[in-house]
Parts: sequence; C-alpha cells; structure tokens
Amino acid sequence: MKIVSVGTVAFDAIETPFGKTDKIVGGACTYISLSAAYFNNSPHLISVVGEDFPNEIIALFKERGINTEGLQIKNGEKTFFWSGKYHQDMNTRDTLDTQLNVLESFDPIVPKSYQDCDILMLGNLTPSVQMKVIKQMETRPKLIVLDTMNFWMEIAMEDLKKVIKEIDVLTINDEEARLLSGVHSLRKAAKIILEMGPKYLIIKKGEHGALLFGDNNIFYAPALPLEEVFDPTGAGDTFAGGFVGHLSSCDIIDWEAMKKAIIVGSAMASFTVEKFGIEKLIELDKSQIEQRINEFKNLVSFN
Amino acid sequence: MKIVSVGTVAFDAIETPFGKTDKIVGGACTYISLSAAYFNNSPHLISVVGEDFPNEIIALFKERGINTEGLQIKNGEKTFFWSGKYHQDMNTRDTLDTQLNVLESFDPIVPKSYQDCDILMLGNLTPSVQMKVIKQMETRPKLIVLDTMNFWMEIAMEDLKKVIKEIDVLTINDEEARLLSGVHSLRKAAKIILEMGPKYLIIKKGEHGALLFGDNNIFYAPALPLEEVFDPTGAGDTFAGGFVGHLSSCDIIDWEAMKKAIIVGSAMASFTVEKFGIEKLIELDKSQIEQRINEFKNLVSFN
Repeated sequence: MKIVSVGTVAFDAIETPFGKTDKIVGGACTYISLSAAYFNNSPHLISVVGEDFPNEIIALFKERGINTEGLQIKNGEKTFFWSGKYHQDMNTRDTLDTQLNVLESFDPIVPKSYQDCDILMLGNLTPSVQMKVIKQMETRPKLIVLDTMNFWMEIAMEDLKKVIKEIDVLTINDEEARLLSGVHSLRKAAKIILEMGPKYLIIKKGEHGALLFGDNNIFYAPALPLEEVFDPTGAGDTFAGGFVGHLSSCDIIDWEAMKKAIIVGSAMASFTVEKFGIEKLIELDKSQIEQRINEFKNLVSFN
Repeated sequence: MKIVSVGTVAFDAIETPFGKTDKIVGGACTYISLSAAYFNNSPHLISVVGEDFPNEIIALFKERGINTEGLQIKNGEKTFFWSGKYHQDMNTRDTLDTQLNVLESFDPIVPKSYQDCDILMLGNLTPSVQMKVIKQMETRPKLIVLDTMNFWMEIAMEDLKKVIKEIDVLTINDEEARLLSGVHSLRKAAKIILEMGPKYLIIKKGEHGALLFGDNNIFYAPALPLEEVFDPTGAGDTFAGGFVGHLSSCDIIDWEAMKKAIIVGSAMASFTVEKFGIEKLIELDKSQIEQRINEFKNLVSFN
C-alpha cells in the first residue's frame, strides 16, 4: 500500500537531564518517514525546508526509499526550528524557542505521483494545512490518520474538529483526549471523540503505553520499561510511522491489524527514545525490530 | 494453601468528586481478606479493633470463611479511623484526619492455629509490627508478601529495610519505588530494590496497570479503562488479596503463577473502585470475576 505522510522536517535543539544537543535534524515527518521505511518500500513525504537544510539528510531519505518529490526547498529561507528542555521526569518539557521560518507560509502540494495513496498520515501541523492535503486527494485514501496536539485545541478548535470529522484514526495523548472531550475518564472521552468522526482513537500515554478504542472494543499496548529514556523527542512520530508502516503491509486494515500496528509503533518508539534525535532510529535492522516486538509480546502474555 | 494476612481493620470517611461517606468499614486487612476469600476457603486474619466495631462485619467475615481468631477486640477502646479526600484526577488524595486509637499499641499475636502458614500477607503497617509477625512464625512461610508506603520510607526507613530483607514479594507504587531506590527509571529501581532482598517486586501504577519484576524478567499487567473510578480506597489491598488468593490455589508459585496472580489482583481491584468502600467487593460472584479476568486477557492479546 502507498503511504503519504505530511508534517514538519525541521531542526531541533534538545536539552534533557542526560545531555544537550546543538541543532540536529528532527520534525514529525522525518521520524514518521524513517520509521515507516522499515516496513514500506517507498513512503511518500510532503514537507518544507529552507536552503539551510543539509543535503546529506535528503540523501539519507532517498537511500531509505523515501520519496521526497513532495519536499519543498525554499531558497533564501530558513528551516523550522524548535528548542526545548525536558524536566527530570521526562514526561513534561518547556519550549525554549520556536522559529517558524518556512512553516509560516507552508502550502502543501500533493505531487501527481502521490495520488492513489492508500494511507494518508497527517503529522502534527496547523489543522487548516492538514485539511488542504485531504482536499487535494483525488480519491479518498483507504485510511487517514491524524496526529495533533493541545496547542491546536487551544487556538484552532473549530478547524481541528472539521479535520477530525474527515479522518479514520486520531492519535493524541491522555491529556489531549481529556481536553478534546471535556471529560476525565478516558473510556468516556473515547466515546465522545469517536462520535466526532474517527473510527479509531489511539491514546498515547508515554511510559504507560497506549490505548486503542474502536469497533466497540479496547486494546492496551504496554510500554517497555526501559533502563533509561534518553530523549523522548520524536517518540510519538516514530510510533505513527511504525503504525502506518505496519498497516501498509497488511492485506486488510481491521481490528487485528490495528492492534499489531500499535505494538509495532510502540516498539519503534522505544528505540527512538534511547538516543538523541534520529540517531537510534536510523541504525536499526529488521532482526532488532523483530526482537523488540517479541519483547512486547512476552511483556503481556500469561496463561 | 493457608493464607495469613495482617493489617488494619478500620473505619474510613471518604470524599471523592462523586460523593461522600460517613464512617464506613475499611482497612487493609478487610479488603485483603474479603478479596482473597473468593479464591481461598479460609483466609486467616490478624488485626485489632475497638469495642465500637460492628458485629455484623465480623459476622460477614465469618460467613465468607475468614478466620478471625487473630482479630483482637479491645474493650473500652476505639477502632482506627482515617478520613481522606480525593482530588479530581483520583490519583492523589489529602488525609483529613487520622485517629490511631487501638492501632497505637497494636501488638499482633499469631494464634497457634495460624502456624504452618503457606502465604503470609503483610498489609501496610508500621514496619516493626510487620517484623513482629514474621518472628512469630515457627516455620518460615513459603511466600511472604509485604505492602508498605512512602510514609514509612520517610520516618522508619531502617526498620522497613530490615523487613524488606526478610520477604519474597514487595508491592509498592511507582513513586514509592523511586523513593526507596533513589532512581527515576523503574527498571533501574527494580534492580536496586531486588538487591535489598525480595525475589519479586510489584510496582502498582493505578490507572496505568502494574509491573512485575523478578526471575530476570518483566511482566506488564494492564489496568482496565473504566467508565468511572468512583472510589480508589482499598484498590491496592483488594489487589493484594486477589494476588495471594490466586497463588494459594496454585500447585507451584513460579513466574507463570505470579503473572496470573497479578491479573487476578488487578481484576479484583477494578471492582472495588466502582463503588464506595467494600460495597462492590462483597457483592461479586465467581462468574463475574471470571468474566473480568477474560476482559483483561482480551485487553492485551494480539496476533
């Protein structure tokens, strides 16, 4: 199946209790595409960067089979930059700096070769930009997955609700599920959110795993307790990449496929947090990934 | 197998966002024994109450097969009383009032008929009192399980560490695991705590499930997402009761038995939080419990 992913390709500067980076490559679409590329021959990417973006990374994308025809490179402009500092518990962070740069006027264009997309993965972006991509699809993709965050719920709730109505799978964290639904119980929140349009809701709970709601059913994907979470940046996007990557390899996208896809996404995310940025994500091989998925299986199996 | 449980039998007054109770029956050993009684013909209880404690509850204990020979009733004295108020998120609470009463001078006596105990469940109590019970056992029980809390880590850490050295299974929550070990990563914390003596460590994470560490292995028991958590009081003790109750029905207490026992404990706890106090816990039947355990199984199974 053909995957098209939309989202940022960016620079990050990250500080955690374990260390600090200068500008390194990040962005939702970077993590999504690199993660999906382990399960799909040619994930298609839509994003924008400035002329300061390193050619080696674009070369890396191509080497991994990622189609970059949808990557706009703006001459004379600078790439989106985000800088943040994680607190001791690694579950919360402060944004130190945000320079929108090329993102300010980002107008996504879906190349002709991206049409007939089966799975559209909309990474966290302004809801109206996400909508623009959906509108450009000549035939509706089999599955539209949307990631978003509390920021858009606070400043663009109406736009966000319009997009949510058009999609199949929504991925948010527990606090965002409570904010979007207005209720505290996640089970009740899921009911309310599923009535807004999507068939499935994934609630990401970081070190506490993830919940999948849909088909009148619930699935709980555990998180692997790690020796150390080194840098959580990109974990959610890596999860999304593994999730759509796995689904693209399935014959049918049903409840069983969704459950496995969440385990695959969780396994991929568990690698990303072990090092800074994309460092760990780009050095994996198939057997490591298989082994980690088995660890997830063993983690919850009992007789 | 014979179970002996030690802990409080008490009065609670509880306030949650959903309602408020006057004095109702609570206490660690109450929940442990009532929960264990669904899996064991005759759990043995050691505790102390005042003359104000209702005879009907003692009759209820006996009706459920609970052996109350170890329950001291102090004439002219009053039962331990605790009052607390839960915050909106139900994960944290404030203690409004604590009246130790009979608990202040509690000197547990192990009746002769309680000897040859297979599983000793030490509910949350002063560590030196927990130690007194261990010392009275003529032959060491096959399995000693200890529950404790941050309060004892703050005011009686040395005594607590001495008891921890003598036991097989420690049950605490995530914050307590961090406090006891001095490290943030639960995986690292588990390593440090297992070196203090116990063979197994259970880290309870409330609505995020529970982790079991031991035998160089990890198991993640999910929590069932509930429509509403009505009153979390006694959830941990109900968990412990289901845990030892299930183990007492096993031929061998090994890793597989421990995993299932944690699921059984989690299932029992998921009932307790649905109503105030012991209300839900005393109205269950075997088929409801089986069904809930199956829900836990389905919650995490995937192909």
